[in-house]
Amino acid sequence: MGFTVTILGNSSAKPTPHAHPSAQVVNLDEQYYLIDAGEGVQRQLIRRGINPLRLRAVFISHLHGDHCFGLFPLIATLGLEGKRTPLDIYAPAPMGEILDYHRKYFWDDLPYEVKWHEIRTTEHRLLMENSTLEVWSIPLRHRVPTAGFHFKEKQPGLNVEKFKIEKYGLSIAQIVAAKRGEDIRLESGEVIANSELTYRPYEARSYAYLSDTAYSAKAASLVHGTDLLYHEATYAMSEEMLSRGRGHSTTHDAAKVALKAEAKQLIIGHFSSRYKQHDQLREECREIFENTLLAEEGKTYCVGKQ
Amino acid sequence: MGFTVTILGNSSAKPTPHAHPSAQVVNLDEQYYLIDAGEGVQRQLIRRGINPLRLRAVFISHLHGDHCFGLFPLIATLGLEGKRTPLDIYAPAPMGEILDYHRKYFWDDLPYEVKWHEIRTTEHRLLMENSTLEVWSIPLRHRVPTAGFHFKEKQPGLNVEKFKIEKYGLSIAQIVAAKRGEDIRLESGEVIANSELTYRPYEARSYAYLSDTAYSAKAASLVHGTDLLYHEATYAMSEEMLSRGRGHSTTHDAAKVALKAEAKQLIIGHFSSRYKQHDQLREECREIFENTLLAEEGKTYCVGKQ
Repeated sequence: MGFTVTILGNSSAKPTPHAHPSAQVVNLDEQYYLIDAGEGVQRQLIRRGINPLRLRAVFISHLHGDHCFGLFPLIATLGLEGKRTPLDIYAPAPMGEILDYHRKYFWDDLPYEVKWHEIRTTEHRLLMENSTLEVWSIPLRHRVPTAGFHFKEKQPGLNVEKFKIEKYGLSIAQIVAAKRGEDIRLESGEVIANSELTYRPYEARSYAYLSDTAYSAKAASLVHGTDLLYHEATYAMSEEMLSRGRGHSTTHDAAKVALKAEAKQLIIGHFSSRYKQHDQLREECREIFENTLLAEEGKTYCVGKQ
Repeated sequence: MGFTVTILGNSSAKPTPHAHPSAQVVNLDEQYYLIDAGEGVQRQLIRRGINPLRLRAVFISHLHGDHCFGLFPLIATLGLEGKRTPLDIYAPAPMGEILDYHRKYFWDDLPYEVKWHEIRTTEHRLLMENSTLEVWSIPLRHRVPTAGFHFKEKQPGLNVEKFKIEKYGLSIAQIVAAKRGEDIRLESGEVIANSELTYRPYEARSYAYLSDTAYSAKAASLVHGTDLLYHEATYAMSEEMLSRGRGHSTTHDAAKVALKAEAKQLIIGHFSSRYKQHDQLREECREIFENTLLAEEGKTYCVGKQ
């Protein structure tokens, strides 16, 4: 099962000619989720070959315009494109009121339901789950109520090794019991350990999105062991004071979170428009956390093993 | 004095990979005005080398999202960029309420004033004027209250020909009188006709923007003689029934308006996303109005003589 994230926008609040504000698409085995929706996201989806109708839900970290202005045109377009199934929007309050006023002024004939689910940004809470995925909110530290997201693939069920079934002549009932994690007693009285019989087809993977935020040790703990971590690195170290004042992170903040979280890989984004190129930001991160890449627009990153 | 219009977006409601929704910048002698503000307009301004801080006013034709969703991020960015002078927004009601809503949820710390001026879309009315320009609203026919715009350069004052001043030995008082349009009596008793002495440095020019709209003979009359006419041509003639039902124009509708208005040139835009290329739309217009061009994104068109 594939688990990837595609970057649609990696700039921060001020627009630039070559980049778009924050937006990403998580794809877990053809389940598509949008994280943040900066202006222009609908066009970015199309340009990257992602059909907006396939989005199952949208997660908005906070209500600064550069993270959500693109949501409202997207909702309108989905209506034009014939959407009939509900769209779930997970966002902090007062997104509900904002959606209501858009219904009043812009979406009077929307053919589908837009369902808002409130994120309480001070809580670590399960927002959404299905048979293969959990999405958790991660409290962050910014100028307005903000939550990050932790996409955690569920541990797959145990599979029974086919040739062990044949070797031991296991019955259906015994196979079912083994899949439940039990040891199996054969007719002979011999007990076969579960670990002898079963395996997990894959190890559960996870992706964490932490933006916008100042350094947060708590957030790092909550996403411990994540395969891929996206963390804002709006500023270089030379802008440390400015970063603190704005509730953002420097390169070193992002890297320290990745280190503390023991993430397997870090990708950084939400770059201030003052930087015309970003290699220096990546290098600053690598002083602390070696496995750092830039979250480049248009690129798709793997979350763990594919 | 230059008088041009730059096309920032020529697509209609559904986003496409290669085009942006409606937006244009009129430039009369370095006075910049934005007409409509589809999503992404702020980035389009930057990409075309137009500093958003130079915009004197914004004219919004109607409150469909593809004509105004880009206004709200733009207003936020102007604040980030240090704008301190008021921004005038001319738009139909209830734009005032919509702006209030955005102040409440997105612009609590905007460092400049956003002033809404209501357009009564059923009226032909002077919206704005200064020493060189008048902007008039043009009632249009669409599914929601909609106005087009007529940018009319004011007739310049008369200049007195320099060698006529010398030839007739005109006094200051006589020069001033001539500039007022008067004939001049010389000391000898001879009367020199004003037309002998004066000239207009240029003929006043005008630009008309008619979108979104079904065919309107009234609108054509109100922009009679315009140097450049932008008219929506959302659909080809094969989609005539659909066009009527949606309150839009076909190619022939646009061309007929240009013909009736005796416009000097027609540019067409607001193309439906079903058309991957637009030459055929232009050719259909030319069946009725020869001097038709496509309003291409990124291009700048002259309004009359430069």
